[in-house]
Amino acid sequence: MERTRLRRHPELASCDTEDMDEILQESLLCHVAFLDDGLPVVIPSTFGRIDDQLYLHGSPLSRMMGVIASGAPVSVAVSLLDGLVLATSAFDHSMNYRSLVVFGTGRSVTDSKEKRAALDSIVDHLVPGRRPLLRPMTDKEINATMVVAIPLTEHSVKLRTGPPGRSEEWPVWTGVIPIHTVAGDPIQAVSDRDGGSTPPLPDQVAEVVRSLNEENTSAS
Amino acid sequence: MERTRLRRHPELASCDTEDMDEILQESLLCHVAFLDDGLPVVIPSTFGRIDDQLYLHGSPLSRMMGVIASGAPVSVAVSLLDGLVLATSAFDHSMNYRSLVVFGTGRSVTDSKEKRAALDSIVDHLVPGRRPLLRPMTDKEINATMVVAIPLTEHSVKLRTGPPGRSEEWPVWTGVIPIHTVAGDPIQAVSDRDGGSTPPLPDQVAEVVRSLNEENTSAS
Repeated sequence: MERTRLRRHPELASCDTEDMDEILQESLLCHVAFLDDGLPVVIPSTFGRIDDQLYLHGSPLSRMMGVIASGAPVSVAVSLLDGLVLATSAFDHSMNYRSLVVFGTGRSVTDSKEKRAALDSIVDHLVPGRRPLLRPMTDKEINATMVVAIPLTEHSVKLRTGPPGRSEEWPVWTGVIPIHTVAGDPIQAVSDRDGGSTPPLPDQVAEVVRSLNEENTSAS
Repeated sequence: MERTRLRRHPELASCDTEDMDEILQESLLCHVAFLDDGLPVVIPSTFGRIDDQLYLHGSPLSRMMGVIASGAPVSVAVSLLDGLVLATSAFDHSMNYRSLVVFGTGRSVTDSKEKRAALDSIVDHLVPGRRPLLRPMTDKEINATMVVAIPLTEHSVKLRTGPPGRSEEWPVWTGVIPIHTVAGDPIQAVSDRDGGSTPPLPDQVAEVVRSLNEENTSAS
């Protein structure tokens, strides 16, 4: 499609749906652009995904949710920075990255089964394996949350990997500084009821930390 | 101003310019929203900053650069994810983050002194200390690059820190998983002229790695 065809640097385009899947899987944030009184606004957000639907949630009072729920046009970017590419000239400096940009129109998710599945997908995306351990959602909580869907069908993926593209005679180090998103040691919430003792870290949280660190230090 | 007043969760708003400075300093990417044929588009980009001007650069053939250079309205988000906030219910899960959203109109930077300073600011932002070591920019490179400025004056900063806001009786671990952006071991570009030998990592690159890791593991 015209909107998703890359005019610049078509060699950086990817048509591989595995790239899209990987970007969506590894990214914890997306950036959502919409129009507010005709002007562009971009806001960071968490998200979930089921098949070809991207799900966002928020308060029914938020501008962003209202605009997207109305069926307005929206664009969503999901970007992973993988490395700083250091060349001999400023001009040849670059970034290694994987980036997905989606174009579509929003849809309010009102069907209670889809809404619940969408909310589940957001929790599952952020902290895989945690949802079965949580106090179940109440109807009141679900009603107080707005969920919108954006189809992933119209999208473009761009990525860059590898060393600087050009080498010149100049006495400066060139190469790539890999950039990783990693998890630190979990910090337990202090609660009155546990009297300050620190129970061992549950397997589920340790697994999330391990998985984040493994996933995000494998690419460069 | 109306556009930058936070309607939702005003308690998360920050009017501290130090917060804005810190977000701009620590983030390597921004997300730029603009209109293309009346539809919102969001694209990730590197950036530089001098005082109250945010600078973007790109090819004169890029849609984004053309639209912004024309003086069209634009919004830029700069977001740092600091942690996953794990509560007892899905509803109370959250993120710790620092986020800046800028609203303004673009301006093409044509003055050669400002243009050069803007390009310098982008390199200085990504790899501090490296610019003096590089082969200097040529006029041809500068002419082949488009630079646009967006004023930082109209902006909003939102941030969340700390543990989950609410504690309920439920047998699940609650707390925060800190998220950090870190640099890995630099990977040297292989060049014909060094015959495969690996010179020691120069101080400047080692310093960038150290600085990235220090900066980004201090917050949670």
